Amino acid sequence: MKTIVLLRHGESQWNLENKFTGWTDVDLTSHGMEEAISAGVLLREKGFYFEKAYTSFLKRAVKTMNYVLDEMNLDWIPIKKSWRLNEKHYGNLQGLNKKETAEKYGEEQVLIWRRSYDIAPAPLSKDDSRNPRFDKRYKDVPDKELPVTESLKDAIIRTIPYWECEIYPALKTHEQLLVVAHGNSLRGIVKHIKNIPDSDIVKLNIPTGVPYIFEFDDSLELINDYFLGNPDEIEKKMNIVANQAK
Amino acid sequence: MKTIVLLRHGESQWNLENKFTGWTDVDLTSHGMEEAISAGVLLREKGFYFEKAYTSFLKRAVKTMNYVLDEMNLDWIPIKKSWRLNEKHYGNLQGLNKKETAEKYGEEQVLIWRRSYDIAPAPLSKDDSRNPRFDKRYKDVPDKELPVTESLKDAIIRTIPYWECEIYPALKTHEQLLVVAHGNSLRGIVKHIKNIPDSDIVKLNIPTGVPYIFEFDDSLELINDYFLGNPDEIEKKMNIVANQAK
Repeated sequence: MKTIVLLRHGESQWNLENKFTGWTDVDLTSHGMEEAISAGVLLREKGFYFEKAYTSFLKRAVKTMNYVLDEMNLDWIPIKKSWRLNEKHYGNLQGLNKKETAEKYGEEQVLIWRRSYDIAPAPLSKDDSRNPRFDKRYKDVPDKELPVTESLKDAIIRTIPYWECEIYPALKTHEQLLVVAHGNSLRGIVKHIKNIPDSDIVKLNIPTGVPYIFEFDDSLELINDYFLGNPDEIEKKMNIVANQAK
Repeated sequence: MKTIVLLRHGESQWNLENKFTGWTDVDLTSHGMEEAISAGVLLREKGFYFEKAYTSFLKRAVKTMNYVLDEMNLDWIPIKKSWRLNEKHYGNLQGLNKKETAEKYGEEQVLIWRRSYDIAPAPLSKDDSRNPRFDKRYKDVPDKELPVTESLKDAIIRTIPYWECEIYPALKTHEQLLVVAHGNSLRGIVKHIKNIPDSDIVKLNIPTGVPYIFEFDDSLELINDYFLGNPDEIEKKMNIVANQAK
């Protein structure tokens, strides 16, 4: 049996402040750090052993991965980072408070921006200092592919090639892989693996810091998937994510 | 101008307990973590910007690198890890207290094991649980190359190919590289870059957590090298390392 574990980063500073984060490179809170450490302890106790790990270009995911691997004494394994695993780009909403945005534009409009499949927030202008073209970490990404806003659909479209070219084929030569990323890039991967329709994927709320286990047979067909941990705590965490804009 | 920065990991638990560590995968102390963070702050303040980083398979080096990159907001850069950057393997001494070993075998003998160029401590036996052949992280290393003890010379011989094949040629396409490693693997690199004779390299005591800057011209010839930071503090740190077995 082969295993891929998906993990959403722990609480970030802007999760705490209830702001749209997207590609903003905010840090973990101390609670987020503890979530990462707990996930690492749990994975170690359950006997997981990753041979390779993947994460995004964003600090909150990289640090979550570092904490997990450290608890597992796997600091030394190879890790690959890609902008394609980044969170959905929230365009012009990045930095705005979710509740204030709901008061201004209406809860319904914000829910559309947050949870519709193919409607993106207004884009960042070319000269907006938040535009990723000013960030050296994206210098190797072709201009055409560098987003200034994204719908969930857009985010999934740029995430899946990385899954297809890098992560999934690595299962041929590795037993267990770890992917630490973000709510929406992970939604894309889960949608792809489980063939979830567009209309249903927006309802999937992946909790932070809870390892999501995918088991494959030797021909790399999915045979089982489940969240690792206490079911009551996991449901509580899913509800927190679902209610953030309310 | 091109730059490579060498950094020796911060204080580890066994530095503190004054034990021979070698390939034992001990953690940083909280002081060691602070040394790493200070190095990151200093490098950020001085305007360094690494495009790629290299480290060993040992937790104390990987974590030092992670702390440095986090302070510099460079969590996202590619990092490569290799057993060839590991500390010198201390053979049968690994786990023994340096002072007790000096009392038992004499200070002179310990100084030979610690500071001679080509005399290695007694090797680990084939069935010793400390033998790296039992550690999965070394499964891709050919048996013949996997050490059970090393002199400084042995450690340098297996470090330099990594410098030659991976680190130094990367300067052709990168402006600034970071290497976080150990007292003896870094001695090997410094010996190689500066062409230091065998008899002198043992006297070089690289302080922990102090960035050691090497500047190269565009044809990759060394033009300058210096330690970054307060000279008095750096000398104090060098003396601490030199006096560990006394």
